[in-house]
Amino acid sequence: MGKAISIIMGSQSDLKIVKEAIDLLKEFKVNFEIEILSAHRSPKELVEYVQRAPKKEIKVFIAAAGGAAALAGVIASHTRLPVIGIPIETKSLKGLDSLLSTVQMPAGIPVACMAIGKAGARNAAVFALEILGISNKSISSKLCKYRNRMRANIKRTKIKL
Amino acid sequence: MGKAISIIMGSQSDLKIVKEAIDLLKEFKVNFEIEILSAHRSPKELVEYVQRAPKKEIKVFIAAAGGAAALAGVIASHTRLPVIGIPIETKSLKGLDSLLSTVQMPAGIPVACMAIGKAGARNAAVFALEILGISNKSISSKLCKYRNRMRANIKRTKIKL
Amino acid sequence: MGKAISIIMGSQSDLKIVKEAIDLLKEFKVNFEIEILSAHRSPKELVEYVQRAPKKEIKVFIAAAGGAAALAGVIASHTRLPVIGIPIETKSLKGLDSLLSTVQMPAGIPVACMAIGKAGARNAAVFALEILGISNKSISSKLCKYRNRMRANIKRTKIKL
Amino acid sequence: MGKAISIIMGSQSDLKIVKEAIDLLKEFKVNFEIEILSAHRSPKELVEYVQRAPKKEIKVFIAAAGGAAALAGVIASHTRLPVIGIPIETKSLKGLDSLLSTVQMPAGIPVACMAIGKAGARNAAVFALEILGISNKSISSKLCKYRNRMRANIKRTKIKL
Amino acid sequence: MGKAISIIMGSQSDLKIVKEAIDLLKEFKVNFEIEILSAHRSPKELVEYVQRAPKKEIKVFIAAAGGAAALAGVIASHTRLPVIGIPIETKSLKGLDSLLSTVQMPAGIPVACMAIGKAGARNAAVFALEILGISNKSISSKLCKYRNRMRANIKRTKIKL
Amino acid sequence: MGKAISIIMGSQSDLKIVKEAIDLLKEFKVNFEIEILSAHRSPKELVEYVQRAPKKEIKVFIAAAGGAAALAGVIASHTRLPVIGIPIETKSLKGLDSLLSTVQMPAGIPVACMAIGKAGARNAAVFALEILGISNKSISSKLCKYRNRMRANIKRTKIKL
Amino acid sequence: MGKAISIIMGSQSDLKIVKEAIDLLKEFKVNFEIEILSAHRSPKELVEYVQRAPKKEIKVFIAAAGGAAALAGVIASHTRLPVIGIPIETKSLKGLDSLLSTVQMPAGIPVACMAIGKAGARNAAVFALEILGISNKSISSKLCKYRNRMRANIKRTKIKL
Amino acid sequence: MGKAISIIMGSQSDLKIVKEAIDLLKEFKVNFEIEILSAHRSPKELVEYVQRAPKKEIKVFIAAAGGAAALAGVIASHTRLPVIGIPIETKSLKGLDSLLSTVQMPAGIPVACMAIGKAGARNAAVFALEILGISNKSISSKLCKYRNRMRANIKRTKIKL
Repeated sequence: MGKAISIIMGSQSDLKIVKEAIDLLKEFKVNFEIEILSAHRSPKELVEYVQRAPKKEIKVFIAAAGGAAALAGVIASHTRLPVIGIPIETKSLKGLDSLLSTVQMPAGIPVACMAIGKAGARNAAVFALEILGISNKSISSKLCKYRNRMRANIKRTKIKL
Repeated sequence: MGKAISIIMGSQSDLKIVKEAIDLLKEFKVNFEIEILSAHRSPKELVEYVQRAPKKEIKVFIAAAGGAAALAGVIASHTRLPVIGIPIETKSLKGLDSLLSTVQMPAGIPVACMAIGKAGARNAAVFALEILGISNKSISSKLCKYRNRMRANIKRTKIKL
Repeated sequence: MGKAISIIMGSQSDLKIVKEAIDLLKEFKVNFEIEILSAHRSPKELVEYVQRAPKKEIKVFIAAAGGAAALAGVIASHTRLPVIGIPIETKSLKGLDSLLSTVQMPAGIPVACMAIGKAGARNAAVFALEILGISNKSISSKLCKYRNRMRANIKRTKIKL
Repeated sequence: MGKAISIIMGSQSDLKIVKEAIDLLKEFKVNFEIEILSAHRSPKELVEYVQRAPKKEIKVFIAAAGGAAALAGVIASHTRLPVIGIPIETKSLKGLDSLLSTVQMPAGIPVACMAIGKAGARNAAVFALEILGISNKSISSKLCKYRNRMRANIKRTKIKL
Repeated sequence: MGKAISIIMGSQSDLKIVKEAIDLLKEFKVNFEIEILSAHRSPKELVEYVQRAPKKEIKVFIAAAGGAAALAGVIASHTRLPVIGIPIETKSLKGLDSLLSTVQMPAGIPVACMAIGKAGARNAAVFALEILGISNKSISSKLCKYRNRMRANIKRTKIKL
Repeated sequence: MGKAISIIMGSQSDLKIVKEAIDLLKEFKVNFEIEILSAHRSPKELVEYVQRAPKKEIKVFIAAAGGAAALAGVIASHTRLPVIGIPIETKSLKGLDSLLSTVQMPAGIPVACMAIGKAGARNAAVFALEILGISNKSISSKLCKYRNRMRANIKRTKIKL
Repeated sequence: MGKAISIIMGSQSDLKIVKEAIDLLKEFKVNFEIEILSAHRSPKELVEYVQRAPKKEIKVFIAAAGGAAALAGVIASHTRLPVIGIPIETKSLKGLDSLLSTVQMPAGIPVACMAIGKAGARNAAVFALEILGISNKSISSKLCKYRNRMRANIKRTKIKL
Repeated sequence: MGKAISIIMGSQSDLKIVKEAIDLLKEFKVNFEIEILSAHRSPKELVEYVQRAPKKEIKVFIAAAGGAAALAGVIASHTRLPVIGIPIETKSLKGLDSLLSTVQMPAGIPVACMAIGKAGARNAAVFALEILGISNKSISSKLCKYRNRMRANIKRTKIKL
């Protein structure tokens, strides 16, 4: 069976954020692959990788980048598969730059932008699973349990005043 | 056959933006339905509507709202289907408020945020079609032609100096 | 006697901020209750809780949440009691997201937004007491003393150059 | 009977925004008074006015100001009654200045900040009515009908595609 | 002889910033006095203090405050003497709130706003000395030497590569 | 007698804003001169002009510029006289760029920053008059009347509901 | 002789801004070519065009784009020639998105970012000419005259009060 | 042989950022000189230095400054050589002030703005080398290798999950 999800990071340093997505996909036992490829520093390798994706049965891309974060948009410009973007927090502008470069895509080439940082990385995985879950009952059912666990955790929390 | 896509607007005035999505879905001849429902002004109707969605074979939600734009997030809290958010431009803060209220979702409940305004509305439709296109060759093939038309349009453009 | 004030937090981690409100309400010996309920992760429990409030003689809600902070707005959409919002500081955008998602409510469903963080939490309690103080002379009189203590503290402060 | 609500504007030009609040209070037939008083240009008159309020049975203040909007905060510093602030949109910074000067109050002296502009003005009146409604069944019942009308209006809206 | 400059801080915690101004005024041997007075928490004491200033031969006010920083504006509303504002950095919004609340004064009541934080505090003192230096040759001459020292310090700096 | 105040604009187009200052200085019958000089486009002429100022008995500079607004700061770097800056509103960033380039001066070289646009221009003149008023009873007395007129205007305003 | 400068726009609608650059290059009689190519909508054509540039003796790229403005960065990722970016003003965020997506490039792949809008377009041409002027005395001499004209224009301006 | 590149910093404290540029220029063995000169604190020395540059065969300026960062613009106003600006991160506004003061130059006097902080400093050196590389094959060839090393580094990176 092919890999359902491809995760691409602009730099090795993004891994500590992207780990939130990886951990969830492992928990869901969904096949995925992960690459470090930069829209600016390794553009040819990036495009070649994206063009090989259909043969590998990849169905969704997740892209994490910071600053002038062109990664998700460049992937989207080379595929008709859904691309989910994770804006990475930056030192000076705190990810506002990453957010705007990821979300403000021109008409015709969408990127599904998630929240800045760890919550966004976690949600990129959840959203990819929701997409796969449309036609995969096993994933859909696991998502249902995942939600119930979240709800139960909130209920169980005792406030320590 | 059921409706594949549900479009929800927080207010009638959002229609002039959301029209960008509607027009594309019509062009693609994909079944969709459209409702005005407000997270803040008609919350019960909204939740009831979202909960009926699975029976109607809805596969993707598109939600457009401005200001403290809770709409997409509230829909996402009641479904495991993918929810795409369109931040509507506001008079004073120009949609920065709508963008942040839509995109900064907590871990566990994702919203796929598009660009502010018309480009975002158009892309919400494209992204919904990309999701459906994963398992629907006809849609995927139309997306391919849509992209080729965009590319051809750019090529054809003569610069009038 | 019923609980006059209900404090709701989106997450356990908000408690270190909300403690500022709790401490003041304890000091004023006003009955209150406190819950962890999320607009996004436990929406049904939240709505049920809000709908039970009138029976419990709750008169004011205080809601604390961060990021795409829908909590106060969702509570407000289900009650005609006053809702006070505390925007929690976030890691990347420092609470600007929380502030705009809390304050920019649409016409018809107000949320009384306080400052970001601890000052806002403290003021949520003061404001709730001011509301109760309109028809409760004991609270009004305590507020008067509280103000005098603040003023006296400022007067007493010696500047250590 | 005294005036329940006092509305203060920093300048005559704010009236076109504040009218949203006035119209609702008239609709609810609640007694109110309205003054133009500036924290910066008529500070003594402002303070004297605020200090006379208890004798006039005023229960809630609504203050509208733009730019370095000190008005609501200065009123709050002279009363223990609840003060609701409306940030007025400004020409250059679009009300971000008014919003931050109104909402970021120091611990101890709260202002209940509404949205920027007309929605905020409308909501200032709704929120004042919610406060009065705690101990006034007639107002509370009118609020209930007001909400139902909003909900019904949304339901009735036909989307003209 | 009277005090030429009055420094007012909204809170004791501002002293670590305001110290930059104090140190320079001491270095210039200019008479000044310093008070903790809050526009919001001790408004009457503040106004009384400002009204006594002319008798004490105060010629310039320096006011430091953070958040919804009404201090400088309220002082300006009660005096025709020049008022210099220092926006104090805040925890969440980093002083953007303090800056906008200090600088965006309405026509008629100016505040001379300095930079956020320590550079602003230092410059509040330099600017006050520039004002006094217009009619005081000793201060003007010391300012000249102060500038020359700055320039010389830059020249002397050896870059350690 | 010399000119007390020098007004410098970065461009002819700033005149419609700066007129607010000019009109007030005319009303006060204070001698002033006005020049178009650009920190970036005519730097030598600017510096020469600033260096001639003391001989002309100029006591205060007012500088208006937009965008990367270096004008006030460059003037301040060549004089020990007080420099007041007016940030001009810009087309794209609405004067936030002008404001930050004017106000965020480094320690040692202050610029007294006013509000963005017309209110700031008006206040630059008021502030310059406050500085001159310290040692000029006629100006101080006119400022007193100017304030009283503002206050009276507010009192006289009848709200037309 | 080859074209010295290549101007690339993301969309036909950018031409009204880019015209500022075109007019100056015509005035300087420098050879240039101009293309509409989109990083997102015609990525292959863009890369092929950039790769053909060295053969055409292109020495400098100018790229204009708005929103998630990846254009300049994508060009830079495929060439070692200098790339100058013009952030185009956008409807909602006024070009702040374009600015941050253009300027916040990762280490290794620079883009020389100009101001938002027309001033930036004009300056992109001036900067390209400054680069060419390093080794071309004719261009350098024309730049000298261009500057002198700007300075003379400022001098000639009579202020019409 | 003369120095090809001149690096100017507004303050000694900027060196830890500017070091990123210095290290790369050393690696490329390109002659450069480095000075501490402030637009505000040593303006005459700055102008004299810039005017001596042509005799020293300087071809490109790099200027690093923070806050109201006039340095790059003031250099640009005195030379027709290309000026590259590095906005230094500031304590309160995180370099947004430095960025806007550097990039928003008026038409006619461009500054090539890089990213805020270390990436911007590194890229200032790369961009200066790209300019020199137009007419210097050795530098152009080293840039080619530098890029290849970056690409190879990305390829070699193994993700440690």
